[in-house]
Amino acid sequence: MAKTPTDFQTLRDLATRIRIHSVESTAAASSGHPTTSSSIAEILSVLFFRTMRYKVSAPRDPSSDRFILSKGHAAPALYGAWVENGVVQESDLKKLRQLGCDLEGHPTPRLNFIDVGTGSLGQGLAVAAGMAYLGKYIEEATYRVFCLIGDGESAEGSIWESVNFASYYHLDNLVLILDANRLGQTRATMVGHDLELYKKRLEAFDFNAIIVDGHDVEALVKAFDTAATVKGKPTALIAKTYKGRDFPNIEDKENWHGKPLGGETERVIKHLKSLIKNPGKLNYTIPAPLSEVPAVNISNIKLSSPPNYKQGQMLATRQAYGTALVKLTESNPRVVALDGEMSNSTFSEAMKKYGPTNFIECFIAEQNLVGIAMGISCRDRTVAFASTFAAFFTRAFDQLRMAAISQSNINICGSHCGVSIGEDGPSQMALEDLAMFRSIPGSTVFYPSDVVAVERAVELAANTKGITFIRTARAPTAVVYPNDQIFEIGKSNVVFSSPKDQVLIIAAGVTLHESLLAAKQLANSGVAVRVLDPFTIKPIDKIGIVKNARECGNKILIIEDHYPEGGIGEAVLAALAEEVNIYVKHIAIPRVPRSGKPADLLNYYKIDAKNIVNHVDEVIRK
Amino acid sequence: MAKTPTDFQTLRDLATRIRIHSVESTAAASSGHPTTSSSIAEILSVLFFRTMRYKVSAPRDPSSDRFILSKGHAAPALYGAWVENGVVQESDLKKLRQLGCDLEGHPTPRLNFIDVGTGSLGQGLAVAAGMAYLGKYIEEATYRVFCLIGDGESAEGSIWESVNFASYYHLDNLVLILDANRLGQTRATMVGHDLELYKKRLEAFDFNAIIVDGHDVEALVKAFDTAATVKGKPTALIAKTYKGRDFPNIEDKENWHGKPLGGETERVIKHLKSLIKNPGKLNYTIPAPLSEVPAVNISNIKLSSPPNYKQGQMLATRQAYGTALVKLTESNPRVVALDGEMSNSTFSEAMKKYGPTNFIECFIAEQNLVGIAMGISCRDRTVAFASTFAAFFTRAFDQLRMAAISQSNINICGSHCGVSIGEDGPSQMALEDLAMFRSIPGSTVFYPSDVVAVERAVELAANTKGITFIRTARAPTAVVYPNDQIFEIGKSNVVFSSPKDQVLIIAAGVTLHESLLAAKQLANSGVAVRVLDPFTIKPIDKIGIVKNARECGNKILIIEDHYPEGGIGEAVLAALAEEVNIYVKHIAIPRVPRSGKPADLLNYYKIDAKNIVNHVDEVIRK
Repeated sequence: MAKTPTDFQTLRDLATRIRIHSVESTAAASSGHPTTSSSIAEILSVLFFRTMRYKVSAPRDPSSDRFILSKGHAAPALYGAWVENGVVQESDLKKLRQLGCDLEGHPTPRLNFIDVGTGSLGQGLAVAAGMAYLGKYIEEATYRVFCLIGDGESAEGSIWESVNFASYYHLDNLVLILDANRLGQTRATMVGHDLELYKKRLEAFDFNAIIVDGHDVEALVKAFDTAATVKGKPTALIAKTYKGRDFPNIEDKENWHGKPLGGETERVIKHLKSLIKNPGKLNYTIPAPLSEVPAVNISNIKLSSPPNYKQGQMLATRQAYGTALVKLTESNPRVVALDGEMSNSTFSEAMKKYGPTNFIECFIAEQNLVGIAMGISCRDRTVAFASTFAAFFTRAFDQLRMAAISQSNINICGSHCGVSIGEDGPSQMALEDLAMFRSIPGSTVFYPSDVVAVERAVELAANTKGITFIRTARAPTAVVYPNDQIFEIGKSNVVFSSPKDQVLIIAAGVTLHESLLAAKQLANSGVAVRVLDPFTIKPIDKIGIVKNARECGNKILIIEDHYPEGGIGEAVLAALAEEVNIYVKHIAIPRVPRSGKPADLLNYYKIDAKNIVNHVDEVIRK
Repeated sequence: MAKTPTDFQTLRDLATRIRIHSVESTAAASSGHPTTSSSIAEILSVLFFRTMRYKVSAPRDPSSDRFILSKGHAAPALYGAWVENGVVQESDLKKLRQLGCDLEGHPTPRLNFIDVGTGSLGQGLAVAAGMAYLGKYIEEATYRVFCLIGDGESAEGSIWESVNFASYYHLDNLVLILDANRLGQTRATMVGHDLELYKKRLEAFDFNAIIVDGHDVEALVKAFDTAATVKGKPTALIAKTYKGRDFPNIEDKENWHGKPLGGETERVIKHLKSLIKNPGKLNYTIPAPLSEVPAVNISNIKLSSPPNYKQGQMLATRQAYGTALVKLTESNPRVVALDGEMSNSTFSEAMKKYGPTNFIECFIAEQNLVGIAMGISCRDRTVAFASTFAAFFTRAFDQLRMAAISQSNINICGSHCGVSIGEDGPSQMALEDLAMFRSIPGSTVFYPSDVVAVERAVELAANTKGITFIRTARAPTAVVYPNDQIFEIGKSNVVFSSPKDQVLIIAAGVTLHESLLAAKQLANSGVAVRVLDPFTIKPIDKIGIVKNARECGNKILIIEDHYPEGGIGEAVLAALAEEVNIYVKHIAIPRVPRSGKPADLLNYYKIDAKNIVNHVDEVIRK
């Protein structure tokens, strides 16, 4: 394993081959990033053919070392490495970026050797830190995690959230490689080649930081070997590299970002081929994992006991979240809660009793929080539930967007939704969370209206692929459902009805409770309305809604504690797009709200029982 | 100005009075954060009664020093300072957090002394850095900017984006105060009272960093005086403080986060009153600004010349963005472009020729990008346009959410929308941007479909209050409109029609062009359809859509290059909620897309002309 001059020459030749793949594949695609690929060629050859322990036969084997290319636009180099180790066909690489070819512009897990999609910069390190946390604290495994970031992306704050997390948790099984190739898209990066500055910053964040010539395979081998011996802190390799390395007249020059080499291709390929010392089959051994991790089963996880409440009892939906997590953990020890230093508000604190295997404090850094959840849930090793105030998940929208591309299975619980939180005011109120989570492809959006529903939502979420979101509320509301109520994704429940209903009210959370009060009041005055709890906002129960609307004179009133756009109202309207003759009135929070007592705010924004009575009256008169 | 022992005692008494206000107001509200307020009492007394130069008579005067309380939950202390300087009535403070009182749970610009809303942590420093950039480079003014952050929020990556920006641009008129009170919501912060660690980190990011006893007014005065003399870099005061300072048996104790003192109130107030040396009127002078900034007029900004294109010419909408910005700048020098190191892709690079007064490179840090835009546009000093790939603005959703609460007037341009970008793949494709920007209260969302429309959208945005968003595309499309076309917010344009249209197609951007192709093809085969360009997605032209739908047999087909949720489809459906008898078919991108050539992708996701012909056929048969 690379101790002799011959071995080092093999690594050099592999780096050059990776460069050739990068130039040829982007030339074939007429787009892409050969110069960015070139700066990391030696780093990849050393990682993939000397340092990393993994199974070529099973690229996502859970015992193997992990690698994340955070600078996803250098995908051609990564694909080139997987051509060299025999997993990708060279002929496929010529179809780079074509529809139907999984070798896309940026890596996605459509490829069997990719864990998460990258391409939105600054996100890979959080995922890598999650993987390293998993290996160190949950699995106590020997695998290590390598994450390669670009220098430009080190300006992303998310990188520093993850750096902070990694050193705080002493993730000595994590190696960050900073590819300092000096050039961004339009100009030099903020730090350029002042590598000492990176070192100073990373050391200030308690990393072991090593400056290394990123084009010297021998120096890289040595640096990675050193990293493996450092205990108690993560290591960063600050690699001095050049964009377009070994592309004569292109190397280290501006205006070559994100361009295939065009008319220069042939000339560069010729030069690169001239650098190869051994054009035949190369002799190397990819080291196997040091040990095997056991198989784990995270499917079909059930609550250890059913919900145990009394109808009418006053409890906040957020309270049941922690209870449900504990019940899941009693059934399966691989359930892990993560929180953004809000655990006594979100109620994830119930999980703290299990210690670091089942509760990860991620502090006030929501981007990293979501990334860590993605990292620990890769390769189906855990079921992750991340929580904070629902409003603050807007901080991680880009991570959530990338989680969908990453085919991540992560569960999010956002508490403190809507104006009903009261006095803390608009900065703390989630009023766009449904819009955000609905827009994520393949997501499942739960809006449980009582504690029984929350427990079942958490249970369903644990067994649902993709991104799930559970919206919980701050204030206590009455228990609506019996403990044996059955909940299904995409299936609504009618909670108040009569045979002569004139309006179908659709509401969830606090507005469901206000609607129930209104319905009872209206019933007393001889006006019959039906109240429907959608339970999931995505998928929305189209069949149930249409059926009930038809039975209620084709009139729907939607009441929600959310901005008008993207919430329950638009979910229902989307379901009804191809239906005609159904009238829909939609009441939501029309503008930035104010602080105030919850009841005052519900009244002010016309979503309390008293106002619902008036809305019903208007709808009936239509 | 605080040079004698008497002066210092006045500052001490003011700090104690601020504490008393914090305890009393949160007790009256039965909610809020007295302990967090207490840790910053001396910092505020020194800032507001010794260090800051401002006009009490005109709290948002543009010549005054600025202060941002990034840790917005300490609002009671800030309000207390403004009680002491006579701007806020003490009686109003007793209505803290009540509906109708502008003294909300977290500060918002409903108060005349607040520039931006805070309460989502980690955001204040970006705004402050924007203000400092404005003062140093655009206004060349003497005012200085102070930003107080909590220690817990220093875990937010956004803080480090802004720290990086501030030192990169040598913002020596900026002072960051880090209130290191050691305690977060549920536990100690990551760094606790290891102040040397903060110093090391801030120095590594090129700040002048000073550790100071945050409860010693004399030390604070000295530190702020030193900060004023340091040139070429920003200063950070790392203030060692205690949460619940001077609240006996509560100070520095856990479990007191976010709670009024309840039964302890009277005892604590009694103790605080005992600390006041001079209970009468205090003698202090608030220093006036060193110089006045000139008035600026940013209203009614026009393009210096009308659009100048030829119908049918092929141009990407993004190309007109830079052209329009330059034309606006020719009319008004206070137009400023900001970019996230994508300026040659977004075309904001056209503004670089004006230098740092009109172009701010914000590098790859989108949260800070939006915060800087907010900062430079405060107090109506500039018209800010921030751009990067539309997908990457998801990184700043929380900042955009807070910008609405902040009553910010900022303009966002997101390029590279939809699958039509092609080969780069899903990580670079904005497919949820309309959902995000529509959900922001008071926002205006432009989706211009050709370069003429883009120029007018940019002009309209410059003169529109609130958050505006302009969605541009990567690929060239034909110029549709004549140069003298008039565009209005909320007003659609019919671009293809006949008297016997059977279906109304609503589309924008690339799908408008595909719809036009389809409509022409259909016309040739005797099928008449109308094509409507909404121009703004929010507000959507309800009247125009209903009128045209009625004229087209009550059948609408919506085609968009966006996920199904929250885009054009749901905007139209929301507008039609109370209309009955209109059938709507909605075609969007149903799942995470792949890489591929743009034309291949439009076809694969059924939004190209050929597929639109089929969709029309289906709609007609309904």
